[in-house]
Amino acid sequence: MKCYELQGPSGIDGLALVDKPVPTPGDGEVLVRLKAATLNYRDLITVKGGYGSRQKFPLVPVSDGAGIVERVGPGVREFAAGDRVIGSFFEGWIGGEPSEAKMRSALGGSVDGVLSEYRLFPKHALVRTPEHLSDIEAAALPCAGLTAWSAVTKLGGVRPGQTVLTQGTGGVSLFAIQFAKMCGARVIATSSSDAKIERLKKLGADFTLNYRTTPDWGKKAREWSIHGVDLVVEVGGVGTLNESIRAVRIGGTIAFIGVLAGPPPPDLRLPLMVMQQQRLQGVTVGSVEDLQAMVDAITVNGMKPVIDRTFRFDQVRDAFAHMESGAHFGKVAIEIG
Amino acid sequence: MKCYELQGPSGIDGLALVDKPVPTPGDGEVLVRLKAATLNYRDLITVKGGYGSRQKFPLVPVSDGAGIVERVGPGVREFAAGDRVIGSFFEGWIGGEPSEAKMRSALGGSVDGVLSEYRLFPKHALVRTPEHLSDIEAAALPCAGLTAWSAVTKLGGVRPGQTVLTQGTGGVSLFAIQFAKMCGARVIATSSSDAKIERLKKLGADFTLNYRTTPDWGKKAREWSIHGVDLVVEVGGVGTLNESIRAVRIGGTIAFIGVLAGPPPPDLRLPLMVMQQQRLQGVTVGSVEDLQAMVDAITVNGMKPVIDRTFRFDQVRDAFAHMESGAHFGKVAIEIG
Amino acid sequence: MKCYELQGPSGIDGLALVDKPVPTPGDGEVLVRLKAATLNYRDLITVKGGYGSRQKFPLVPVSDGAGIVERVGPGVREFAAGDRVIGSFFEGWIGGEPSEAKMRSALGGSVDGVLSEYRLFPKHALVRTPEHLSDIEAAALPCAGLTAWSAVTKLGGVRPGQTVLTQGTGGVSLFAIQFAKMCGARVIATSSSDAKIERLKKLGADFTLNYRTTPDWGKKAREWSIHGVDLVVEVGGVGTLNESIRAVRIGGTIAFIGVLAGPPPPDLRLPLMVMQQQRLQGVTVGSVEDLQAMVDAITVNGMKPVIDRTFRFDQVRDAFAHMESGAHFGKVAIEIG
Amino acid sequence: MKCYELQGPSGIDGLALVDKPVPTPGDGEVLVRLKAATLNYRDLITVKGGYGSRQKFPLVPVSDGAGIVERVGPGVREFAAGDRVIGSFFEGWIGGEPSEAKMRSALGGSVDGVLSEYRLFPKHALVRTPEHLSDIEAAALPCAGLTAWSAVTKLGGVRPGQTVLTQGTGGVSLFAIQFAKMCGARVIATSSSDAKIERLKKLGADFTLNYRTTPDWGKKAREWSIHGVDLVVEVGGVGTLNESIRAVRIGGTIAFIGVLAGPPPPDLRLPLMVMQQQRLQGVTVGSVEDLQAMVDAITVNGMKPVIDRTFRFDQVRDAFAHMESGAHFGKVAIEIG
Repeated sequence: MKCYELQGPSGIDGLALVDKPVPTPGDGEVLVRLKAATLNYRDLITVKGGYGSRQKFPLVPVSDGAGIVERVGPGVREFAAGDRVIGSFFEGWIGGEPSEAKMRSALGGSVDGVLSEYRLFPKHALVRTPEHLSDIEAAALPCAGLTAWSAVTKLGGVRPGQTVLTQGTGGVSLFAIQFAKMCGARVIATSSSDAKIERLKKLGADFTLNYRTTPDWGKKAREWSIHGVDLVVEVGGVGTLNESIRAVRIGGTIAFIGVLAGPPPPDLRLPLMVMQQQRLQGVTVGSVEDLQAMVDAITVNGMKPVIDRTFRFDQVRDAFAHMESGAHFGKVAIEIG
Repeated sequence: MKCYELQGPSGIDGLALVDKPVPTPGDGEVLVRLKAATLNYRDLITVKGGYGSRQKFPLVPVSDGAGIVERVGPGVREFAAGDRVIGSFFEGWIGGEPSEAKMRSALGGSVDGVLSEYRLFPKHALVRTPEHLSDIEAAALPCAGLTAWSAVTKLGGVRPGQTVLTQGTGGVSLFAIQFAKMCGARVIATSSSDAKIERLKKLGADFTLNYRTTPDWGKKAREWSIHGVDLVVEVGGVGTLNESIRAVRIGGTIAFIGVLAGPPPPDLRLPLMVMQQQRLQGVTVGSVEDLQAMVDAITVNGMKPVIDRTFRFDQVRDAFAHMESGAHFGKVAIEIG
Repeated sequence: MKCYELQGPSGIDGLALVDKPVPTPGDGEVLVRLKAATLNYRDLITVKGGYGSRQKFPLVPVSDGAGIVERVGPGVREFAAGDRVIGSFFEGWIGGEPSEAKMRSALGGSVDGVLSEYRLFPKHALVRTPEHLSDIEAAALPCAGLTAWSAVTKLGGVRPGQTVLTQGTGGVSLFAIQFAKMCGARVIATSSSDAKIERLKKLGADFTLNYRTTPDWGKKAREWSIHGVDLVVEVGGVGTLNESIRAVRIGGTIAFIGVLAGPPPPDLRLPLMVMQQQRLQGVTVGSVEDLQAMVDAITVNGMKPVIDRTFRFDQVRDAFAHMESGAHFGKVAIEIG
Repeated sequence: MKCYELQGPSGIDGLALVDKPVPTPGDGEVLVRLKAATLNYRDLITVKGGYGSRQKFPLVPVSDGAGIVERVGPGVREFAAGDRVIGSFFEGWIGGEPSEAKMRSALGGSVDGVLSEYRLFPKHALVRTPEHLSDIEAAALPCAGLTAWSAVTKLGGVRPGQTVLTQGTGGVSLFAIQFAKMCGARVIATSSSDAKIERLKKLGADFTLNYRTTPDWGKKAREWSIHGVDLVVEVGGVGTLNESIRAVRIGGTIAFIGVLAGPPPPDLRLPLMVMQQQRLQGVTVGSVEDLQAMVDAITVNGMKPVIDRTFRFDQVRDAFAHMESGAHFGKVAIEIG
């Protein structure tokens, strides 16, 4: 079988297509023939060595994949050959609260990922693909989808009638718009591009803001939502945090997702956060049980993820370069099989 | 001003239209010119003396009303003449957990209700009517609407992708279907009439069941929802409880609303409830803050309550008789002003 | 190795001591040399065939055991020979919400139990024994202890200052008193014996009631707790439910544990439950993660379970007979090794 | 009657003792003869003008007071002359979620405070003083006590067996130790003084750390608590935040209380917070219903607040100076009547 491998933090050019034997499923394992993968910004950082010296190498990169069960190992009654499946971001976080041990199993990070024609999954790390989704659409869900789901429903607890603010047009933000609408919420979406703003409206955004032309968008968002936004899905990192704090209502939540570091602004409004009893909630994807709950929600509501563009398996470097350009709207996908 | 008054538990015929002076708003009070009211089954029981000897008489019956602010008393800055408003079911339950003191203020029960041309409300017991609703539609919300809202969102905690089962076509059940869909849930709705079932489908029900022709509907519902129903909105009382317990998943909830008493069946499946870690949750309307949250949700989602038929103020007895007949689908309304 | 086995629902006399080979731990398995077990009422029902025709036979009965790791299988880094451990009631409910699949793994019910000198456990179904507990005390925790823990902390959410009511002197009730006090709550405990009431006071009960001499104890408990009891740990089944409903405050909870069936009283106060927005919450033990949380709490607070009497491994029938007599106060234990 | 008044942000020396007529209770109002007050750091900031130009002047400063009901206005049945009572920090936040309107009623900030022989309270803003507390002890509760209570129980959700870390020996921190122990938690307490550390141990701290001699106390705390601290009660502001993030477990909470501003460190570990799904939760005192819940907990557990030193009413300036010196351990009190 063919798979991509990184020997070190070599950047996109270091992605090498190699040959390996197809593995055999052991006790409780499932061999999946991968059909599609999608990229997350985190995969780009990994490829470029952004996670430092503790990163495992060699590494099969990329966390998000979907495919078809090829064969099951002993003791697997939950799946059979031919089943369409999605792999969980964390192999070892089945349910409950997160922990260090559970999180030491991220695909394309702590363990090998999905840029491969075949991969073994523990049976408890797979969920079935909804009928209405293609393999490419299914492959869009594990990281960005579940992160947005956790932010909006599980940690954000959004109810009908509440207001959710999203930032930009990355994968997590588009999913957050779709899930917030699914929850009956009002959505305020920001972007720096008027063309993209039109697409955000089509996706369901009730209000939109160009944060370039309206740098004090937090104030505007607060006005529109009367008492303030209930949940900001913050993907911009510390740079946008001040406007987010301004947008959020008293007692509201900022779901904090951005992986971008950088020093915080000297006037970071943490004292205001305290006085307003606000909550800054880190979000790190979710468990297999959370993935199942999200897939159920997607099924019941016939939701489809936004796919920007699909590359062939031999175009993986182009796919990464496209993601790096920032021109995409939705997920960058790779067709494997 | 004209208002209806009951001198005792005299039944529908005892409803007398009387004349009274228009009251003057005191400190923190708001005088509302009522435009519409709607009936709940509980109002019928009250009129017929079903709540026993502790019922206050004389009584202006009926809890649910909406209208226009006529005048405000000293210290009221929250409302002004001309504002369209809805009255809360409980005057004294503003927010937080319920308590005996807070619940000792139910309109048309502990205190006078809304079958009146004018009524004084404490300022904290009113919320604004959404623009897209008529006064009649607004008057449909305080009791049945808020009960369904509390059952589905606040106490039931329904999330997208979950399954909610509703029973019949009473006010609470229709609202529960609408709120469950607003939450992104799948709805299984039951009725004894195939004609009504068609209307339930139009309201959004994903699956329907005729409980007359399918007496073991609980089993069927469990199958459809794979692991069992997440929330049953139980309005049938102890008679239907056994099928509800059968329908609900392990760890699921039965929101218990039925006011109907009667002895429980000798084979009541409480032991099964325990073994399945299920929850039977009594629901009693909600607070003014809950009402505001529901009204926000209705506004954001442009939802409209189902009105069966509207009677004139001089036809109140006919309205009660119509409700008693059980032929209605949705709320029975009275146009007051 | 020696172990007890039941060939069918033969009652206590059918408990036979048999010889079997010591099993070998496979992948992810741990061989435990059991040192102690304790009995639960549920074990007595099992032995007497009370769970009907679906009960697995032959069966090694009894769910609750503790011992010492003898040897670990491949892939087990979490435990080593010599570690003192406690087995979880459910082998397959590791964390998160319960489900049918997770609950199909109850020791001494769906799978073999602990009345055996050795037993294999999956590594994820064990937690470490706190240093301050003997093996016998540790063996008291898995079923009755965790049921009380789930009722009081996880499902009951008891906070300092709240009032918890317990019934009688069975294992769950004594643990509930201890956990309620650990949570900073006030405890009202009932019993039919004045001698036992003295022991309940020593265990921490703030108020006590003899339910034989005070049959309307629900009213009394409501008075003592001012607004009503926050949580009743109901172990008496449908027979005591009416008094429990009376005792509980508006918005309060009845954690329902009793395995006893029997028809409900014709005047069952479910309508009152609804009007008071009360919650009847079934409780079914808990997960391995819950067990770990409870063990942490027991460790931090130096808590010791109440052991009534310890029998030798060849006195298992006497132990069951002692439990059946109802004379015990606390857990009936068996020393195995 | 005598009361202290500030004409502007004049500092401690601007505190002037003036004479005013005793007010008369109106509808729903209660006249309280204040017996004691205690100081919070926030009162010192107010006196020194630290809250900027929006501060109301003239102002009767200080939020925390307790006393005896002198007389009640019309419509007050909840209290009678002679009742011992405590005033809520916010007059208008009765229950439920916080909001701008509810928070616009902080004593000694938005409205006049308690450094006065008499004060009118709305009846819903008072709770009864527990019998086992003196008026001085009762006056210690409204701000620091309720802030700690909200942080530990309501927002922190601390359960028995969890680990709570507190910082220093200010009022909130000492209350947090007491409440955490009341919840059955393990407490790690830090201080810069070995003498104070001895007193922290006596108050119940299980582990202590001198943050001066152990500047990387976060790492140490994480080790002691095995998987990390469940809740840090952060009062040090952004300066200590990095060590707090280090101390907290994956999925844990930092309750953020410090009113101290100042620029954040350039290496603020917010990305680590995200990766560990941690939560930074602002805490702003609480509602009257929260105050009642805390007072219930204090009553049931016979808890006593730590009073450092009591000043006479004519020594208010000395009391403020003592607080400013930082030498205190526990609350600085003023005996009024």
